[in-house]
Amino acid sequence: MDTILYGNAVVGQSGGPTAAINATLAGVIKGVLCEQSKQNPAIQTLFGMRNGVDGLLREDLVDLSAIFCPEADPDGKKLDALTLTPAAALGSCRKKLPAAGADNEAEVMDKLLEILERHNIRYFFYIGGNDSMDTVAKLSAYAAKKNYPLRVMGVPKTIDNDLVGTDHTPGFGSAAKYIATTVQEILRDTAVYTVPAVTIVEIMGRDAGWLTASAALGRLVTGREPDLVYLPERPFIHEEFFADVRAALEKHPNVVIAVSEGLECPDGTMVGEGTQSGAVDAFGHKYLSGTGKALELAVKAEIGCKVRSIELNLPQRCAGHLLSATDIEESVATGKAAVSAAVSGVTRRMMTIRRVDGEGYAYEIGNEDIFTIANQTKCVPAEFINERGHGVTDQCLNYLLPLIQGERYPEYKDGMPVYFTI
Amino acid sequence: MDTILYGNAVVGQSGGPTAAINATLAGVIKGVLCEQSKQNPAIQTLFGMRNGVDGLLREDLVDLSAIFCPEADPDGKKLDALTLTPAAALGSCRKKLPAAGADNEAEVMDKLLEILERHNIRYFFYIGGNDSMDTVAKLSAYAAKKNYPLRVMGVPKTIDNDLVGTDHTPGFGSAAKYIATTVQEILRDTAVYTVPAVTIVEIMGRDAGWLTASAALGRLVTGREPDLVYLPERPFIHEEFFADVRAALEKHPNVVIAVSEGLECPDGTMVGEGTQSGAVDAFGHKYLSGTGKALELAVKAEIGCKVRSIELNLPQRCAGHLLSATDIEESVATGKAAVSAAVSGVTRRMMTIRRVDGEGYAYEIGNEDIFTIANQTKCVPAEFINERGHGVTDQCLNYLLPLIQGERYPEYKDGMPVYFTI
Repeated sequence: MDTILYGNAVVGQSGGPTAAINATLAGVIKGVLCEQSKQNPAIQTLFGMRNGVDGLLREDLVDLSAIFCPEADPDGKKLDALTLTPAAALGSCRKKLPAAGADNEAEVMDKLLEILERHNIRYFFYIGGNDSMDTVAKLSAYAAKKNYPLRVMGVPKTIDNDLVGTDHTPGFGSAAKYIATTVQEILRDTAVYTVPAVTIVEIMGRDAGWLTASAALGRLVTGREPDLVYLPERPFIHEEFFADVRAALEKHPNVVIAVSEGLECPDGTMVGEGTQSGAVDAFGHKYLSGTGKALELAVKAEIGCKVRSIELNLPQRCAGHLLSATDIEESVATGKAAVSAAVSGVTRRMMTIRRVDGEGYAYEIGNEDIFTIANQTKCVPAEFINERGHGVTDQCLNYLLPLIQGERYPEYKDGMPVYFTI
Repeated sequence: MDTILYGNAVVGQSGGPTAAINATLAGVIKGVLCEQSKQNPAIQTLFGMRNGVDGLLREDLVDLSAIFCPEADPDGKKLDALTLTPAAALGSCRKKLPAAGADNEAEVMDKLLEILERHNIRYFFYIGGNDSMDTVAKLSAYAAKKNYPLRVMGVPKTIDNDLVGTDHTPGFGSAAKYIATTVQEILRDTAVYTVPAVTIVEIMGRDAGWLTASAALGRLVTGREPDLVYLPERPFIHEEFFADVRAALEKHPNVVIAVSEGLECPDGTMVGEGTQSGAVDAFGHKYLSGTGKALELAVKAEIGCKVRSIELNLPQRCAGHLLSATDIEESVATGKAAVSAAVSGVTRRMMTIRRVDGEGYAYEIGNEDIFTIANQTKCVPAEFINERGHGVTDQCLNYLLPLIQGERYPEYKDGMPVYFTI
């Protein structure tokens, strides 16, 4: 155990919101409250930075200890509500810190350290995805170079599940559960008519197909799943796609297809962009549609049956009304463990979840060197995708299923969910 | 009380699915089971027609009494699961019966009566929306003309809430709750960044703006609502819209706008016409999809800020994972009451829900002459829309709020909802 580093802490959220990112924030708050309840606490005050490092550079801080300390939240109801509130309660940003050696590096990074020092901040927790881990890596390297004592911890969150070094990411399980459930409902909705029709569901995921793969989870539970599933890990070949759709229509009239937003053709063009050229709107501007819409138009032109596309869009990442209990539990635990780790001397690490081998699902929380993690993408491995590239394997679904187990619902008041505002 | 009419019954579902249409089916089944438990039951067997009158014409019938009778479903678990299952479990159709005097009238209608007679069917329950009530009206008129003893009852369902003669329609409350909740979550998601951005949420409703109005329900509960709400009841004027958006952006960076799919310009063109196929369905309704996308492109061209459009699409009508308890209760009660009414001699009527005057919310179930109801649309009244036409009044929200009260969730198994298949 290192020497105890006394001081304040700051926590920020960054990148795209998720339905569980505030559960991780609640975990960090719990960790600090736990720490503060000790006789000789290392952390005195926990600040929240509004809008990530962007807000920190504006010195826009909120005193989270004051909001959630036992005096202000005696029954923990505020913290419980925050746990189940979707989208970053502290606000977010997409700021990229300057690279080592960049012209503005000293200007930006010195300002950050100056602000941290002014508030005696010695612990820095950053909840985010791939780009946010880049921020953690840069800040920890710069602070070390300047001999500013700062323990910097990345706490992962991303619905995309594309961070390396961890079995999966907090936030993914809830998004996967929402997608698996919503696709089941779409399968039921589209099955009511007898007219041949194709429904294309576009799911988030530019580089990794984890969320789209979750659309097939019904195979293990209900026996219903989309006929075809296409992930960005495989090149998308239109001719094969049309043949797959025709074969599916031979089997039954209501064909449902799940596609990742990031499908790419063998020549490197995106599926969306390829079929959009030429189309213009009333203002003479290029009609930019998504992958689902592009494939809808392609099927209409090529096969000629009724086609509809559905973009699941933002609700995938912010549907707080249907959460995976497993995901929420792990998100809180990861945030809490980040505080313990930092207080015990760990720094420059991202928290990770490791799946424990054996019967049934169990996990352990650990951490990994941030420099081995930042700016990498974990894609769906080859053995999780079927040979033809139009579906996922049982092995893939067995990996996914434990992550959507259990339901957490927010409290409702007057028929609407009660979410927390910081 | 009329003489008791002994025979069998048939129930069908028609038109677009809803999350509560099977609750109404469960209500009809409950009504018949209740009837059958009497010493001298009027109804012997309850058949379900698959895919509405389309299936009936193919004589595609399923024996619902056999599936849900106390012997087959002793603890009522099947019926409970059916109650919370979204989308028409019997299948649906969009068939329009021939008009009185049409060339094929006798051919189609005589065939229907022949099939009904072959199965000794004397009760006909049809769960559907506006177009389905047209079927009920035509069949009851034809049966009367041919002196075929048949009690024909329409049981309303439509997420659109656009049927006259009833305070509201079963299915609407659950859709409104899903929309109100999802829009709250989108408001939270879009609020995390500080960059000016407009988010346009397209909501179902070709002619009536009830569902879009529900997007504003947060005003009464959470204090958060979209900045602007546009319903199809008012002509859509692009210049006013741009001025409204600019004014909203002056107030805060994250502007959220709810729009009905059926917005129409003063010259009669649809707002989304530029981005749609122009196809029409069997009832001559224009197939609209793209109002949100069209306005996204218009805002991008005119104002130039970041814009995104979200089409809530099918999940609005099939999200069984979040139901209004009030809606489910009323949907069941309406189906059940239709059976009692028919057995007691009522025919050619649509079941209705009347809001009882007084403190708090209470309702009564009644019925209305089908011929005063079919083929009409109940629009949002003028006093429910603000003067500028870019929002709804508190009076509107006070009408809507009771309909989304209470939560019903399906059972889950292995992390996914358990829905029932007939």
